[in-house]
Amino acid sequence: METMTVKSTAHAELIDVTDRIQTLLGDSGIASGLAMIHVPHTTAAVTINENADPTVVHDILADLERVAPWRQSYYRHAEGNSAAHLKSSMIGCWQTVPIEKGRLVLGTWQGIYFCEFDGPRTRRMLVKLIADAPEG
Amino acid sequence: METMTVKSTAHAELIDVTDRIQTLLGDSGIASGLAMIHVPHTTAAVTINENADPTVVHDILADLERVAPWRQSYYRHAEGNSAAHLKSSMIGCWQTVPIEKGRLVLGTWQGIYFCEFDGPRTRRMLVKLIADAPEG
Amino acid sequence: METMTVKSTAHAELIDVTDRIQTLLGDSGIASGLAMIHVPHTTAAVTINENADPTVVHDILADLERVAPWRQSYYRHAEGNSAAHLKSSMIGCWQTVPIEKGRLVLGTWQGIYFCEFDGPRTRRMLVKLIADAPEG
Repeated sequence: METMTVKSTAHAELIDVTDRIQTLLGDSGIASGLAMIHVPHTTAAVTINENADPTVVHDILADLERVAPWRQSYYRHAEGNSAAHLKSSMIGCWQTVPIEKGRLVLGTWQGIYFCEFDGPRTRRMLVKLIADAPEG
Repeated sequence: METMTVKSTAHAELIDVTDRIQTLLGDSGIASGLAMIHVPHTTAAVTINENADPTVVHDILADLERVAPWRQSYYRHAEGNSAAHLKSSMIGCWQTVPIEKGRLVLGTWQGIYFCEFDGPRTRRMLVKLIADAPEG
Repeated sequence: METMTVKSTAHAELIDVTDRIQTLLGDSGIASGLAMIHVPHTTAAVTINENADPTVVHDILADLERVAPWRQSYYRHAEGNSAAHLKSSMIGCWQTVPIEKGRLVLGTWQGIYFCEFDGPRTRRMLVKLIADAPEG
């Protein structure tokens, strides 16, 4: 399992990490299997979404801010970042992507995004590459 | 990895694909392992939810429309389908289901649904079946 | 695959199951691999989030109640628990956690929570532990 560092530069941010994971996969020599991407944080996440038009990322972040506004009268958590915890559970802290012919199997418009919901911070991302068992 | 075609007939729709995946699993002869279902699209998703009473599907779709209405004043994405991108990241574009005794391990009321959020369209769904390694 | 029983005591509740899964992992003797946690229910879920400060759990539950209120005029499902179905699909009914050195790989503040959205009930949770294939 490899650990990558991801530095966010804003309070909420989606950072495209597809190329970094593909590079790791290329170095591994694995032709077929699974890539698991884990975020060991509770106010961050990882998602798969469009990587062609950056306005999609803008709109997703604005939507999440609308669905999970930073302040709520009922919040008890003293750190004040409960909205980031909600976003983390709604989006999820890990993704799995199949591997074929040494490439991540993603749709034409799909990229893998590290999701920062309480930045800016230096974060970790864990990548586990699992080769398919050889056919018997 | 198998590619299936899914045709949606509405703008937002949940399509039960459990039987198709179970059939693929039956053909594979795999007794024990994992089934991974991937949607290589950024305005669609895949989820597991009740397959007994169709009103549940109606209510989930209506809820998602309420949580992610089609129009927002802050949207910048020119294609106009940002709400579908949000839904895709909230629900997720893949699922994994364990396999035992040649069957998908699902609860009594669970089915696997392809989620169309910007249809109608012809979509793809990827299914990877992974057999457990033989015990040593 | 092991089946665990989880008893919820409230209508909506997050129950920390990390220790139970870690114990199962310890008993298995698996050093490296994957732990898959599946909830075979459509009004429950499983998530990974902060396990240090219980106010985070309070705030997440309150947030989900705001995002998915129990009553909606458009609901058709006669059982009246559509909000719980929505939450289940938004959070997801399973999680995968990597295993290294016989331990679940979780961040410092991460715990695994069974999510009850229509309790109190006695629920099931399935845990499948998969050892990495030995290196060739």
